[in-house]
Amino acid sequence: MSSQIGKRVILSIFGESHGEMIGCTLQDLPAGEAIDLEAVYAQMARRAPGNDPTATARREADRPRVVSGLLGGVTTGAPLTAVIENENTRSGDYAAHRAVPRPSHADYTGMVRYGGANDVRGGGHFSGRLTAPLVFAGAVCRQILARRGVTIGAHILQIGAVRDEAFDAVSVRKEQLDALASSSFALLDPASEAPMRAAVEAARQGADSVGGIIEAAVTGLPVGIGSPMFDGVENRVAATLFGIPAVKGVEFGDGFSLASMRGSEANDSLHYNEDGTLTSLSNHNGGALGGITNGAPLVVRVAIKPTPSIGQVQASIDTTTSQNTTTVIQGRHDPCIVPRAVAAVEAALAVTLLDLWEAEAGHLR
Amino acid sequence: MSSQIGKRVILSIFGESHGEMIGCTLQDLPAGEAIDLEAVYAQMARRAPGNDPTATARREADRPRVVSGLLGGVTTGAPLTAVIENENTRSGDYAAHRAVPRPSHADYTGMVRYGGANDVRGGGHFSGRLTAPLVFAGAVCRQILARRGVTIGAHILQIGAVRDEAFDAVSVRKEQLDALASSSFALLDPASEAPMRAAVEAARQGADSVGGIIEAAVTGLPVGIGSPMFDGVENRVAATLFGIPAVKGVEFGDGFSLASMRGSEANDSLHYNEDGTLTSLSNHNGGALGGITNGAPLVVRVAIKPTPSIGQVQASIDTTTSQNTTTVIQGRHDPCIVPRAVAAVEAALAVTLLDLWEAEAGHLR
Amino acid sequence: MSSQIGKRVILSIFGESHGEMIGCTLQDLPAGEAIDLEAVYAQMARRAPGNDPTATARREADRPRVVSGLLGGVTTGAPLTAVIENENTRSGDYAAHRAVPRPSHADYTGMVRYGGANDVRGGGHFSGRLTAPLVFAGAVCRQILARRGVTIGAHILQIGAVRDEAFDAVSVRKEQLDALASSSFALLDPASEAPMRAAVEAARQGADSVGGIIEAAVTGLPVGIGSPMFDGVENRVAATLFGIPAVKGVEFGDGFSLASMRGSEANDSLHYNEDGTLTSLSNHNGGALGGITNGAPLVVRVAIKPTPSIGQVQASIDTTTSQNTTTVIQGRHDPCIVPRAVAAVEAALAVTLLDLWEAEAGHLR
Amino acid sequence: MSSQIGKRVILSIFGESHGEMIGCTLQDLPAGEAIDLEAVYAQMARRAPGNDPTATARREADRPRVVSGLLGGVTTGAPLTAVIENENTRSGDYAAHRAVPRPSHADYTGMVRYGGANDVRGGGHFSGRLTAPLVFAGAVCRQILARRGVTIGAHILQIGAVRDEAFDAVSVRKEQLDALASSSFALLDPASEAPMRAAVEAARQGADSVGGIIEAAVTGLPVGIGSPMFDGVENRVAATLFGIPAVKGVEFGDGFSLASMRGSEANDSLHYNEDGTLTSLSNHNGGALGGITNGAPLVVRVAIKPTPSIGQVQASIDTTTSQNTTTVIQGRHDPCIVPRAVAAVEAALAVTLLDLWEAEAGHLR
Repeated sequence: MSSQIGKRVILSIFGESHGEMIGCTLQDLPAGEAIDLEAVYAQMARRAPGNDPTATARREADRPRVVSGLLGGVTTGAPLTAVIENENTRSGDYAAHRAVPRPSHADYTGMVRYGGANDVRGGGHFSGRLTAPLVFAGAVCRQILARRGVTIGAHILQIGAVRDEAFDAVSVRKEQLDALASSSFALLDPASEAPMRAAVEAARQGADSVGGIIEAAVTGLPVGIGSPMFDGVENRVAATLFGIPAVKGVEFGDGFSLASMRGSEANDSLHYNEDGTLTSLSNHNGGALGGITNGAPLVVRVAIKPTPSIGQVQASIDTTTSQNTTTVIQGRHDPCIVPRAVAAVEAALAVTLLDLWEAEAGHLR
Repeated sequence: MSSQIGKRVILSIFGESHGEMIGCTLQDLPAGEAIDLEAVYAQMARRAPGNDPTATARREADRPRVVSGLLGGVTTGAPLTAVIENENTRSGDYAAHRAVPRPSHADYTGMVRYGGANDVRGGGHFSGRLTAPLVFAGAVCRQILARRGVTIGAHILQIGAVRDEAFDAVSVRKEQLDALASSSFALLDPASEAPMRAAVEAARQGADSVGGIIEAAVTGLPVGIGSPMFDGVENRVAATLFGIPAVKGVEFGDGFSLASMRGSEANDSLHYNEDGTLTSLSNHNGGALGGITNGAPLVVRVAIKPTPSIGQVQASIDTTTSQNTTTVIQGRHDPCIVPRAVAAVEAALAVTLLDLWEAEAGHLR
Repeated sequence: MSSQIGKRVILSIFGESHGEMIGCTLQDLPAGEAIDLEAVYAQMARRAPGNDPTATARREADRPRVVSGLLGGVTTGAPLTAVIENENTRSGDYAAHRAVPRPSHADYTGMVRYGGANDVRGGGHFSGRLTAPLVFAGAVCRQILARRGVTIGAHILQIGAVRDEAFDAVSVRKEQLDALASSSFALLDPASEAPMRAAVEAARQGADSVGGIIEAAVTGLPVGIGSPMFDGVENRVAATLFGIPAVKGVEFGDGFSLASMRGSEANDSLHYNEDGTLTSLSNHNGGALGGITNGAPLVVRVAIKPTPSIGQVQASIDTTTSQNTTTVIQGRHDPCIVPRAVAAVEAALAVTLLDLWEAEAGHLR
Repeated sequence: MSSQIGKRVILSIFGESHGEMIGCTLQDLPAGEAIDLEAVYAQMARRAPGNDPTATARREADRPRVVSGLLGGVTTGAPLTAVIENENTRSGDYAAHRAVPRPSHADYTGMVRYGGANDVRGGGHFSGRLTAPLVFAGAVCRQILARRGVTIGAHILQIGAVRDEAFDAVSVRKEQLDALASSSFALLDPASEAPMRAAVEAARQGADSVGGIIEAAVTGLPVGIGSPMFDGVENRVAATLFGIPAVKGVEFGDGFSLASMRGSEANDSLHYNEDGTLTSLSNHNGGALGGITNGAPLVVRVAIKPTPSIGQVQASIDTTTSQNTTTVIQGRHDPCIVPRAVAAVEAALAVTLLDLWEAEAGHLR
């Protein structure tokens, strides 16, 4: 129904790829929080195209203007809105875009859903460009969370057949996450970079694209965030993550691997350390039990499908003639969005975790 | 925050494992829909313990009373509420339950979240028993969806290392789903049953438990249900599915396998059949593009962790003495909840899809 | 759309006048709050019919059963549900009820809204009986608020042409409100009782009914509850109050009288007392400025229309023959619901104020 | 909590009086609706200051830019966002504004609510200027409603002691409402204008302000919009109306006058006309029964308090010294906002009624 998410801190996103502006509003942010806009822009640069050799050469001036909710660099408690001007707003011949839906894009479903009135230029509201305001919002929220001791970071776990090493779910450290969160090609093992870039380049050479997996972790969350049943950490984080175009799977902790495990292997036991602090001896559950954070790092993996825009001839239909046809998508396309999507995954986590925290602020503070 | 889900048709669940009643309210169901309660009870029997040799021997009288919203077997449009009496409501010595949290249960997180006031008897509101009202609600919603041509079915794709065959995502048929939806050990290949039961029995013999994967499909959905960004089919279905205790992963279409695929392999093209109808030549996206149903069957897989209750000695802590200790969970436990969870997965789909449909009823009818 | 209200503490009401049960669920109440059920029942008795000579002689056994969310008399944090069995659930010939809509009832609008499927017996879900679960919920919430220093009380300001004295909006005291909140015919000036009862009796004698105004006040609210624009105290309280059948107007502070006042008369100035505490020198705004409580007593007045059920011959239509006709409503009716509605008005305040408080718990505690 | 309202069509408002931009997003508008922006601007001009001799001389360039959701003048179904640049964004010495709260303004409550971080310049997010995006949103929604046969209009019923004639609630006509909706000083009886302007001028001369009442009516609504209990027309309309700063009372139909009426006077009977159409013989309920539209015109009255900004010396406090003091508010102020608030009242109705209609689109179409 609506492009908004959250219950207490509500993120509302607007805009279309070739419309005048995209942007977002964060309703009910806590007041009095200093926001470093340079740090926000740094997050947005990680997502922006053209900043990395693997990404599309198209350039984007994604510098948002914060038009409300911030006074002297501090949140006022009123809705915080940022707008980003689109540079490419020429109308073009978008009637032509409608005729032949691009395979695995939302051209056809959008046309049916909106009775043909949707803006199809550049994907309209379905465009991956709409993750720019998500990253903006996440960058704001993560600064607030950081002051509460929470650190969020993600890395490319897999591109095509190439796999980075995975997080150690028990011992992932803040410093490790901080390093990832400032990287534009985030990896745990630097040796993964060359073969991953090669996989992307091979796809590009083949006028093709390739998918991947992003793995994120969060440290410093207190025990007690989230609720049983439908307002649990997993429900809420997953609902936001599936808002990133191309996400087709979300798993927490050992996720799908738990299917072939026994309880005796998968169970996480609590343990008092010598200094009286508590730890989880293992973290197969990825930091949440009964929908509630348990003090262990939150660990989540996200499946990203290969970019549907490829340069090959593909089968499609012509909806104006009701005939089968073929299509070739023009323009330069990102053969792999996984590196840029890392920032969006972190942002989805930041927005959702701040929302959950604020909702429960009464019992946490 | 709350045990409710949905925006237009809202499911609100209440109750605790050993409280007086559990139940649910469905707000804003369409009026005038005949509900066959026997068919509802049949769905609940699939989830109920004791109906299958793999499940726990404990018996449950899960027959709900519909106390409002139904007149002469037809929905009135007012909130539909069903209550289920709990038979086991003796208080017992629940103080003892608190002291030593069971590994991978919500005992500790619930204690922190609710300041020690939560009902810990039998898991309280965290208990798998709360899926009974979910299955009730799903059974009501699926009847309404069925009259609109929608069929929902799921099967056990995996238990431990044993795997059933998977859905053919393009050609899954209504009859196939109907057969699954009336089975108490739902499989596509009957030959999978014996080795799966053996895997469960082996876990039981080892005082252990085992996890699995459930795969569900939905046919007959019109094109155009769901919305881009945060109200897409995937966001909303996932948010409900993670409400089933033990669910740790959700993927649509080829899901995590898309990571190693190329766009040319993963893209789904539309095609006009000779009779002028449209089909998707492939269904790697699992029936949704841009968050919106595309006419292909909706296909989703759900990872279920092994039951945390096992009969072995496990490490834990004693929160009353702040010492490390061990614990053995008493009683008879379900070594594998996967067969019973099939009905809950289908129910989550039914409730969510009816909600999305009703929200968009204006443009669909 | 739905019979629920609230954002953080959500009240969901279900049931129909002659259905099996009515009741409610309160989602996300704070955990660890002791609830005195006898005090709850005392509130419900104030609303119940038959407890006062002005009310209908029909008796109601409104004793609710709390079936979840309460353990040992203390809230668990899980959804708190109460059910009330209806005693009069015989089906009768309700087809007849549909034919001729009772003037000023929801018979016709309900029939259109629900396509004729709504339960018309005794008003169904539109019945004033549905305020019983509202009063239950309010009685729970007011106990929690009371522990935070908040007191809620209301009185009959007017019945027909007879008027009680009004609150002194600046100096209304907790003790005054406590006295009202335990009264079944709540008045500030006891001398108003005889003429009010006479007005009701005169209406009864004339086979007629009479309306009135209820005035409520709340003391002890901290400064800072509520938000600008749409989540203000006035918006939220009004939205709940209009859920009480027969409410047709809501005003805060001097309300409609402000129309003929000047700013110099209507403005409320803050003042430091000698002990350093702050007071508002006047309270024309009724305790809220910019949607936010300002420390002065919250004062609200509610217009109640005369009971539409009267014993006179009234014009109506026969929807089965599409002819004009007349109707006489059978049975004994309450010629004035105002005394009983006092408890419902207080309950609406309690539920809404707790919701608003919990939503802002983070900055208030 | 948040500056948004609505369940299906959601209005989210952002901005602060002296921030960079104010604006709004309408989520989930129906797609394919042509919007005449000139007609939108005409509505906004009715609210804008400086267009009428009774209003403040300050000028505002309230021409919004629609930056998303509209393509070729037609709604796309994606979020529709409009932004309005603020011209006066100089920071000034706003620390001084905090020290001495203006009586009956939100200065003090806002300071407490947001811990002193709120933007106090010009009232910040509490400013009446925030009704500009409300009027924008209403102007969009009323065009969609107009195509469905719905007409909304309001007039100044009262300013100070001067009263216009009231609507005939049974026979109010579309043409009458259309005339009001294009007027900048909307009255039913033109003879009311001179004495009303005199009352405003008298207040201005006295460095004072004056309140009033606005009465609105809506024709053409189908029977069946709204729901019992908390999602009724009255609940939802009132919740939006109280979002207009200075609104302190809302009543429907005969409202508070019903208190002194008898049922035999107040009941509305249905009647078949000779042509078979249905009418309500009277309309004391103002067009809604049981929360649901009944086909009679919707009639609502709104109490507006006198502008709190007056030129007289007023008592206040100095929060920096904790001493009592006096204050004089500088600048030119609107001695009566009632004429300009007419457009805001109509807008609140338009947004809410479209929301309710869309929510129930399934059973209405």
